Amino acid sequence: MSSSAVSNGSATSGKSSSGATPGRLASVYSEVQTNRIKVALPLPSVLKNSFNVVDGPPSSAAGNPDEIAKLFPNVFGQPSAMLVPGDSANLASDRSLKIGVVLSGGQAPGGHNVISGIFDYLQDRTKGSTLYGFRGGPAGIMNCKYVELTTEFIYPYRNQGGFDMICSGRDKIETPEQFKQAEETALKLDLDGIVVIGGDDSNTNACLLAENFRGKNVKARVVGCPKTIDGDLKCKEVPTSFGFDTACKIYAEMIGNVMTDARSTGKYYHFVRLMGRAASHITLECALQTHPNITIIGEEVAAQKQTLKNVTDYITDIICKRAELGYNYGVILIPEGLIDFIPEVQQLIAELNEILAHDVVDEDGHWKKKLRSQSHQLFELLPRAIQEQLLLERDPHGNVQVAKIETEKMLIQMVETELRKRREEGTYNKEFSGQSHFFGYEGRCGLPSNFDSNYCYALGYAAGALLHSGKTGLISSVGNLGAPVEEWTVGGTALTSLMDVERRHGKFKPVIKKAIVELEGAPFKKFASVRNDWALHNRYISPGPVQFVGPTANDINHTLLLELGAQA
Amino acid sequence: MSSSAVSNGSATSGKSSSGATPGRLASVYSEVQTNRIKVALPLPSVLKNSFNVVDGPPSSAAGNPDEIAKLFPNVFGQPSAMLVPGDSANLASDRSLKIGVVLSGGQAPGGHNVISGIFDYLQDRTKGSTLYGFRGGPAGIMNCKYVELTTEFIYPYRNQGGFDMICSGRDKIETPEQFKQAEETALKLDLDGIVVIGGDDSNTNACLLAENFRGKNVKARVVGCPKTIDGDLKCKEVPTSFGFDTACKIYAEMIGNVMTDARSTGKYYHFVRLMGRAASHITLECALQTHPNITIIGEEVAAQKQTLKNVTDYITDIICKRAELGYNYGVILIPEGLIDFIPEVQQLIAELNEILAHDVVDEDGHWKKKLRSQSHQLFELLPRAIQEQLLLERDPHGNVQVAKIETEKMLIQMVETELRKRREEGTYNKEFSGQSHFFGYEGRCGLPSNFDSNYCYALGYAAGALLHSGKTGLISSVGNLGAPVEEWTVGGTALTSLMDVERRHGKFKPVIKKAIVELEGAPFKKFASVRNDWALHNRYISPGPVQFVGPTANDINHTLLLELGAQA
Repeated sequence: MSSSAVSNGSATSGKSSSGATPGRLASVYSEVQTNRIKVALPLPSVLKNSFNVVDGPPSSAAGNPDEIAKLFPNVFGQPSAMLVPGDSANLASDRSLKIGVVLSGGQAPGGHNVISGIFDYLQDRTKGSTLYGFRGGPAGIMNCKYVELTTEFIYPYRNQGGFDMICSGRDKIETPEQFKQAEETALKLDLDGIVVIGGDDSNTNACLLAENFRGKNVKARVVGCPKTIDGDLKCKEVPTSFGFDTACKIYAEMIGNVMTDARSTGKYYHFVRLMGRAASHITLECALQTHPNITIIGEEVAAQKQTLKNVTDYITDIICKRAELGYNYGVILIPEGLIDFIPEVQQLIAELNEILAHDVVDEDGHWKKKLRSQSHQLFELLPRAIQEQLLLERDPHGNVQVAKIETEKMLIQMVETELRKRREEGTYNKEFSGQSHFFGYEGRCGLPSNFDSNYCYALGYAAGALLHSGKTGLISSVGNLGAPVEEWTVGGTALTSLMDVERRHGKFKPVIKKAIVELEGAPFKKFASVRNDWALHNRYISPGPVQFVGPTANDINHTLLLELGAQA
Repeated sequence: MSSSAVSNGSATSGKSSSGATPGRLASVYSEVQTNRIKVALPLPSVLKNSFNVVDGPPSSAAGNPDEIAKLFPNVFGQPSAMLVPGDSANLASDRSLKIGVVLSGGQAPGGHNVISGIFDYLQDRTKGSTLYGFRGGPAGIMNCKYVELTTEFIYPYRNQGGFDMICSGRDKIETPEQFKQAEETALKLDLDGIVVIGGDDSNTNACLLAENFRGKNVKARVVGCPKTIDGDLKCKEVPTSFGFDTACKIYAEMIGNVMTDARSTGKYYHFVRLMGRAASHITLECALQTHPNITIIGEEVAAQKQTLKNVTDYITDIICKRAELGYNYGVILIPEGLIDFIPEVQQLIAELNEILAHDVVDEDGHWKKKLRSQSHQLFELLPRAIQEQLLLERDPHGNVQVAKIETEKMLIQMVETELRKRREEGTYNKEFSGQSHFFGYEGRCGLPSNFDSNYCYALGYAAGALLHSGKTGLISSVGNLGAPVEEWTVGGTALTSLMDVERRHGKFKPVIKKAIVELEGAPFKKFASVRNDWALHNRYISPGPVQFVGPTANDINHTLLLELGAQA
């Protein structure tokens, strides 16, 4: 196992760059990393030759089009753009471009390839162009903190995980002052365009920036790219967000290993919490890849208005049935956001926040009388450690920190309590031993799978093409993903067409609706049709580590495959 | 991502088999699993043709040879055996063999291939032979619980992780009654030999069984195979234990991902606890693969008689120095057994066990006066949660459960406390946010790396050859592992030569000494020569997922490579 140094090169830093991030120029790489860098990325056919950008019909909004139209007077209703083979007549071929790119929000495998795609587009199609990387997320735009991206600087990041090329951030450009700052940066750098790589919020902000620039006659256009491992930014034209494929494969590798361990050892129930607060796509995808005994999908829990007791009983019942079959082990997948999907928990939290803000929590528990009956019952049902956590660990605003609750550990304790009851009643007579796992950080920065590597490169290359053709307020859209890369379709979708409004503080706020798990969608229906079989019989699958070469290297995830199949 | 059903076959269960484990005959496999099954395994040249078994000089013991000789009158002093090309003159070619195999102790990737190797040897070289798999570990031998292993039964397990083919167990065959039971099984099944696949304890027991059988003129011979992901069963003739390679690669993949995340996010210190209670080989190997900022090696902590405060200060000092360089993030590796290596912690535990057995722990803390001064100080230094854990969570014998302490969380809290102190003193002014990880179950049952697949197959095939030539009390030994498989050497080493005695309950007990991390060994010296550089500069390496095909697929781990290099 030798390692090799990445070939050096010179980085050109923008004036206001802090220089705190030296990049990976002096990094030592593993052989797998080195081999990944060398892999040339395929492009969809339409991007390999000259093309024209063709507009579709005008677009509307996902909901409340009138309000969206008012919020985006300059960019609402734009048609989708589709790249088709052609003579490049509608591209500004006579001049070079100045483009900025920014990473926004949490990491997802493939971000570096989006940047590589934009860069290569500019190199290939618009000689003399410049690509600026804004450092540390949208704050980098506002503070004009950037690095000029060169061939040498970008090289070590090709097909590599992480967001460290320019790093990311969670700031938003939303106040008039912040828009003004962004405008100043655009003018100072003489930008023709900005690519925002982010999730639903970041793409909403990208569209606001596009609207703002156009309204003020600022030259810079803005195009978004769909990023999030959670998989909750997608629509018909944007079949998936990048990073979801890799993250799920990494989690599924670990789950498969734990399953084999469970079956070999024969005495543990492994409770695995997986990322995904607002949607359970990761949990569902990992279930489809590995066939666990029990999988909790938050959206179903919410739709059926289940209580925490219902969820506990569902798990406990299966454990008891398995015991009858001689299995005292199993694997259970739980989405990170489970608690947020349970209405009674939300109610309890709201009441606790109210009580904790005004009253003293006496040790004798008199304060509990202020809880409504159902909330009181729920509170008493919770394991002691969770009760204490709810009462003691509060955020700076004094609110209960729901996100800090380790749901998998809580469920283990609740199942233990229920099993103890059943043991006393004589309906269960086996041992139970729960093991908890949380797979999170391990998946956000893995080496991108071949799918994510190729998809991201195409997204970036397409973003370059959209800006080159003068488009703004679109999200880069690459489709037909079930086919070989050559046959992928390429275009852009009006960001306003993904939007609805939410009423906040008496005002309408535009939001790209998170795509949650559809209970009538193909992935969930597939899961629902087999889960009872998985519960009692062990159908474990071990996906193994992500392969970059060989017959399985280009496989795409089940969710995408099933959704494409249902569409076809 | 499609999956395929493993081709069915018929399993022949031994009479006393419970049938509770139906095997993987009806399992659905991922494509990676299916592809792995199909891979034909290479054999060392000497095993591909006819060979003779040549004896070396007589052996001694690792320590106290006189005592070992007394404990093993029938098998002590046996020469090592080496396979060399030849006419098979010393093999009993005229008859078939009846062999039993057992998996003992915790899972390690590759166990199924050892069994496949034994099976294939018997098929290839001793027509009409039978291989019995004892179920559930050594208890399966004592209770004569077995399955007859057939081509069809074994097929789905080739190159697969886990121990579920016949499962494992932690029972020991050590009392006269238990030896008697084992003898009865050997006679009942007319066994010519037993292969014990296990760690140091299991191989010690294998040797006792060999001694016992020979002493009683039981025909069955006993041969061991070196198994443990912890890597602490090795010697000159047995360069590594199987499973270590795969487990470390899986952990290193995750660590590499977390490192990339740390560098991208720029605000977390990740404390990663890794398996390895008695030795820190896994932690050291993962450090060599990934270059973390801080690595704690238990053996060094013990050699330097460090206190918990020393370890905390070492970590905190580096965090402060990194802050000065602008890095408020990092990755820290900690061996599971760290606490066991700190003398003062052992002392505190011993005192606590004594106090808790006799006194009431009053809330006012008067009981603490019974602690010796140093132990009292240490107790007060511990985070509150750990204090409570020590006092409240005791095992059935009333003893403190050291193994349950989450060392990584404890260290995060201790570092937090120390940093708070320094912040108050004005010597540190940054934020600190620790994230804890434990990588354990994820690595024990992964798909074996190419190295482990090949190594295990050779170990098993060699074990077959050793039994065929009538050897007993040896451990299967495959060497020259840095060379291509064809050039690997094959033989057996006298188990007594690995042994020393320990005095327990007034008696000498034979033990195979655990191979701990040698502070003068090549792997540690390599690490020690670069760790200061890793501490302050980020030399992170992301090994990526284990590859089964492609240029990196046959890489072996750093520890083995460095130890082979130092030997050469």
